[in-house]
Amino acid sequence: MNNYIRIFDTTLRDGEQSPGATMTSAEKLEVARTLVRLGVDVIEAGFPAASPDDLEAVRRIAIEVGSARGDGTSKRPPIICGLARASKNDIDKAWEAVKHAACPRIHTFLATSEIHMQYKLKMDREQVLERVIEMVSYARSLCQDVEFSPEDAGRSDPQFLYLVLGEAIKAGATTLNIPDTVGYITPDEFGALIAGIIKNTPGIENCIVSVHCHDDLGLATANTLAGIQAGARQAEVTINGIGERAGNTSLEEVVMALNTRRPVFNLVTGIDTTQIMRASRLVSNYTGIVVQPNKAIVGANAFAHEAGIHQDGMLKHQQTYEIMRPEAVGVTQTRLVLGKHSGRHAFKARLYELGYAVSETDLDKAFERFKILADKKKTITDADLEALVADEFYQPSQVYTLDGLQVACGTMGMPTATVRLRGPDGTTQIQAAVGTGPVDAAYKAMDAIIQAPNNLLEFSVHAVTGGIDALGEVTVRIESKNGHPLSFDTQTETDRTRTFGGHGADTDIIVASAKAYLAALNKLLVATHPDGQAEAPAVITT
Amino acid sequence: MNNYIRIFDTTLRDGEQSPGATMTSAEKLEVARTLVRLGVDVIEAGFPAASPDDLEAVRRIAIEVGSARGDGTSKRPPIICGLARASKNDIDKAWEAVKHAACPRIHTFLATSEIHMQYKLKMDREQVLERVIEMVSYARSLCQDVEFSPEDAGRSDPQFLYLVLGEAIKAGATTLNIPDTVGYITPDEFGALIAGIIKNTPGIENCIVSVHCHDDLGLATANTLAGIQAGARQAEVTINGIGERAGNTSLEEVVMALNTRRPVFNLVTGIDTTQIMRASRLVSNYTGIVVQPNKAIVGANAFAHEAGIHQDGMLKHQQTYEIMRPEAVGVTQTRLVLGKHSGRHAFKARLYELGYAVSETDLDKAFERFKILADKKKTITDADLEALVADEFYQPSQVYTLDGLQVACGTMGMPTATVRLRGPDGTTQIQAAVGTGPVDAAYKAMDAIIQAPNNLLEFSVHAVTGGIDALGEVTVRIESKNGHPLSFDTQTETDRTRTFGGHGADTDIIVASAKAYLAALNKLLVATHPDGQAEAPAVITT
Repeated sequence: MNNYIRIFDTTLRDGEQSPGATMTSAEKLEVARTLVRLGVDVIEAGFPAASPDDLEAVRRIAIEVGSARGDGTSKRPPIICGLARASKNDIDKAWEAVKHAACPRIHTFLATSEIHMQYKLKMDREQVLERVIEMVSYARSLCQDVEFSPEDAGRSDPQFLYLVLGEAIKAGATTLNIPDTVGYITPDEFGALIAGIIKNTPGIENCIVSVHCHDDLGLATANTLAGIQAGARQAEVTINGIGERAGNTSLEEVVMALNTRRPVFNLVTGIDTTQIMRASRLVSNYTGIVVQPNKAIVGANAFAHEAGIHQDGMLKHQQTYEIMRPEAVGVTQTRLVLGKHSGRHAFKARLYELGYAVSETDLDKAFERFKILADKKKTITDADLEALVADEFYQPSQVYTLDGLQVACGTMGMPTATVRLRGPDGTTQIQAAVGTGPVDAAYKAMDAIIQAPNNLLEFSVHAVTGGIDALGEVTVRIESKNGHPLSFDTQTETDRTRTFGGHGADTDIIVASAKAYLAALNKLLVATHPDGQAEAPAVITT
Repeated sequence: MNNYIRIFDTTLRDGEQSPGATMTSAEKLEVARTLVRLGVDVIEAGFPAASPDDLEAVRRIAIEVGSARGDGTSKRPPIICGLARASKNDIDKAWEAVKHAACPRIHTFLATSEIHMQYKLKMDREQVLERVIEMVSYARSLCQDVEFSPEDAGRSDPQFLYLVLGEAIKAGATTLNIPDTVGYITPDEFGALIAGIIKNTPGIENCIVSVHCHDDLGLATANTLAGIQAGARQAEVTINGIGERAGNTSLEEVVMALNTRRPVFNLVTGIDTTQIMRASRLVSNYTGIVVQPNKAIVGANAFAHEAGIHQDGMLKHQQTYEIMRPEAVGVTQTRLVLGKHSGRHAFKARLYELGYAVSETDLDKAFERFKILADKKKTITDADLEALVADEFYQPSQVYTLDGLQVACGTMGMPTATVRLRGPDGTTQIQAAVGTGPVDAAYKAMDAIIQAPNNLLEFSVHAVTGGIDALGEVTVRIESKNGHPLSFDTQTETDRTRTFGGHGADTDIIVASAKAYLAALNKLLVATHPDGQAEAPAVITT
C-alpha cells in the first residue's frame, strides 16, 4: 500500500452547509483557487442539484479552477467533484457541472444504516442494494471517476456494508468513502470498521478507501487518523473544520498531525502547509464563522512562540514547548506591508503575492479603497489587505448600495442613525431611525427603506489586526421573517428556513456593521427573486 | 477497577493561563461555584506561588466553595487543589491557600523528559528523582492528598517514568497525573503509555492515575479517552477546552463522549451535564475567549435540532441525525424570562435559579440595570441576565468609571467621541478625540485622560442574544506599552508581558466598547500598583 494520502476538501460542499456559511459564487471561486494553492487533491465544489445557482457555481469552478489552463501553473489541476443523491436527476446535474474539469468526479451516496433505511429512505436492504448498483453504473457511464458513500456507515451493519461496497465497485465506483455521518464513532471502532471493509470487500484492492468524519464528540481528527492507519488513502476534510453541527474533520489538524508525527504515521500529503493560515483566514472571512483562539493549528493562540524568533541557541530550547514552527503553517510576523505612500505598483505586487487574481478595473477600485484606508491607518498588513479584498470583490450582486451613513450615540440614550441607500433603480432614499444602540438604529433605518422583514440571528465584530486603529470586520446572519426562501434538508426530509450571511470591513465599526447587514439583505433579496427564477436549494450531508 | 472517572477541572489554573484570560478574584469565585454546580470532583483553583493575588484567590475558593458549609448543600464539597513547582516555597504557598478546604490537595510537578531535564531544569535523572522524593514527601507531610505530575511525560523514557512514579508513590503521592504537556502524542501511544505505567509502576494499584492532555494536534479528547480506557481514573480538563496554545482537553467533550457511548466505555462521571452550557457561557464571558460555532457540544451550531422539539413520533426519527439531545447539556429554548413589567421579586428569583448568589445591595444595583435594559429591549433572556451580571458584579476594583460618552460617526469621516471619566479621587475629567472609527475615538479620548500607554491586542463584539435590539458584549485585550507588569513563565524561564482582558455589555456597542476598554485599563492599573505591593505573577503549564 502506498503512503500518499489524498486530501479531499469539502469546505465548499459540507462546510458551506453550516448555518449562515452561504457564500457567493465569486467567494466560492476564490476559495477554490486557495485550495489549489494549498495543494488539495480533490475539491468537492458543491451539490449541483440543489439549485441552478449551485450548479452554476460548481460549473464555474470546474472551468476556471479545474481545467489545466485555468490554475495558471503547469501542475495537474485538482479533481473537481460534484455531489449527487442516488438519483438520475442529481447525477445528471452533477455531471453537467463538473464535466468541464480536466479531472471530473461524481460523488453519489445512499444510506445503509438500519435507522436511515427505515425512517428516512423507507427502503429495505434489497432495494438499497439495487439502487446503489443502478446509480453507480449510471454515474460511471458518464464519468470515469465515481465516488460512492454509504451514508451513516458508522452505524451500519458491517456485513451489509461489505456487500453494498462490493457491488458498488463492480458497478464502477473507484473511490469508496466511509462517512461517520453523525459523529458517533470512536477511533478504535472506526479503525476496526475500515480494516474490516478492506479485508472483506471484494475488489477493494483496486479502489481508494476514503474517510469522512464529523466532530460531534470532538473525535473527528482522531477517527480520520485511525481510518488512515487502517488503510484509507483519502481523507475528507474542511478548512477550520467547518460543517453542519460541530463540523467536519479539520484539514489543518489531519495534515499537521501526519507531518509532525511522520515517524509514527509514515504517510505524506500533497499539501503546502505554509498556505494553511491564509486559507483559514479566507474561509473564516467569507463564511463569517470565527475560529476560536484555542483552535488547534489555526487559532490565534495556537503557537507558544511568535513567528520569526530565531536567535542563536534558542531553537533547541524552544522544542521544549514547541512541536511545530508557526512558519510551517504560514504564520508570519505581522508585516508592515504598505503605508500611505505606497504606490499602485507595490499594492498590485502585494495582492499578486497574496494570490489574488484581480482585473485592472477591480485593481483601480481596490487601490482607491486602499488609499482611503492608508489615510486612516498608519500601516496596512496582509490581513488588512485580505479583509479589504474580501469586502470589495466578493459581495453579492448589489441590489442596494450604501450611499451615506451618519450616527450619533453614547450614554445619553437616543442613539440615532441616518442612512442613505441607492436602490436597484439608481435612485437614493434616506431614512433616520432611533434604536437601542447605533447598530440597531442603522439597521432600523435600512429596514425602513428596504422592507424585507428579517430576524438577526448573529452579529459579531472583530478587529482584523491589532492596534487601536484596527480595521473592524463585521459578520451578520439573518433569516427572512416570512420563513422563505427554504432549504430542503434531504437528511430530515424537511424544509428549513435558509439563512444569509453578510460581511463588511471598515475602520468605523458602525459603517462596517451597516455594510455587513446590507450585504446579507442583498443576498436575501437575490435569493427571493433570482432573476425571476424560483429557487429551491437543497442541502445534504454525508 | 471501578468505573468512576474523576473530573479534575483546571479552568482556573491551566485555562486561566490562556493569553488574556486573566480573571478577577470575584470572577474566579463565580467560576468555582459553577464548577461545584456542574459536579466536578476536583477544582484546581490556581497556582498560589505565582503572586499574593493568586494565593488569595485560591484561599477564597478553598474557604467559600471548598468548605462543607460554603457550597450551600449537604453534599461533600469538591477537592480544592493548588499547583506547586517541586520546591518548598511553592508547596508552602499551595498549602497555605488550600488548607482551609474540607478536602485540600497539593499538586506538584517536575519534568522527566530528556529535553526538559537538559534544557529547562539542567538536572540529570538522579537529581530529578531525588527532588521528586524530597518534595512529594514534604507535600505529604502537610496534606493527606498529594498529586504528582512528571511534566512532559508524553516525551519521557517510560522506564524512567516507572521509576520516578514508583518513588513518588513511596514518598506519599496519592494521584499520579500523566501530562502530554506539548500536545504531541497520539491516542495509541498514550493508551500504551498509561497501560505501561499501570503495569510497571510498583504500588500504583493504590493510587489514582490521571491524564492531562493538550490539543495542539486536535487529539486531546481522543488521547484522554484512550488514557481512561487504559485504566486512568481521573481526567484533567477545562471548560471550552481553554488553555495555553491550542488549549486543554474539553470537559464537555470527554463527559459527553463517555455518556453518549456508555455501552462502549462503561464508565460514569459525577457531572450534571445539564449545567454544561451555562458553565461554557460563563467561562467564555469572563475570559473573553469565544467559542466557535462549530465547537463540539457547546458551539452555537453543535446541535442539529433545536431544543424543545418533542412532537409525537418525531423522537425516533430524529435519532437519524442526532446522537445527543440539546437538553442533555442544558441548551434550552430561548426563554422570554422577563420583560419591563417584571418586578424585583421575579428578577431575584430568576437570578437565584441561574445560580447567582447576590447580596441585597448588589441586587438593587442589578435590578436598576435590568430596568434600564428592559426599557430598551422587549424581552430579557437568561443570556442577557448572565451578561448583565458579569458586567455588573465581576469588574475589577474600579479605578476609573465611565461617567458619560457621546459619539458621532458615519461615512462622512471624522468620527468623534467625547468621554467623561470619574477618577480614583472622585473628580471627573472630560476629553474629546477624533479616531479612525468611533471606538478608536473613544479609546483615544480615554487614553488622553488615563495616560497608561498600551497596545490593543484583541477586540471583539458579539450579540448576546438574537434579535436586532440585542445586548452587545465586547471583550478587549491589552498589554502595557512599556512591557510591564511581567509574568514569569516557568516553562521557558523567561518573562513575558502580561495581558489584561476587559469585558463590557450594553445595547450600544460603542458604550460596551468603552466599558470593556476601561475594565481592561483598570486591571492594568491595579496590577501596576496593587495597593503599593509589587507583583510578579508566574505561569506554569503541566
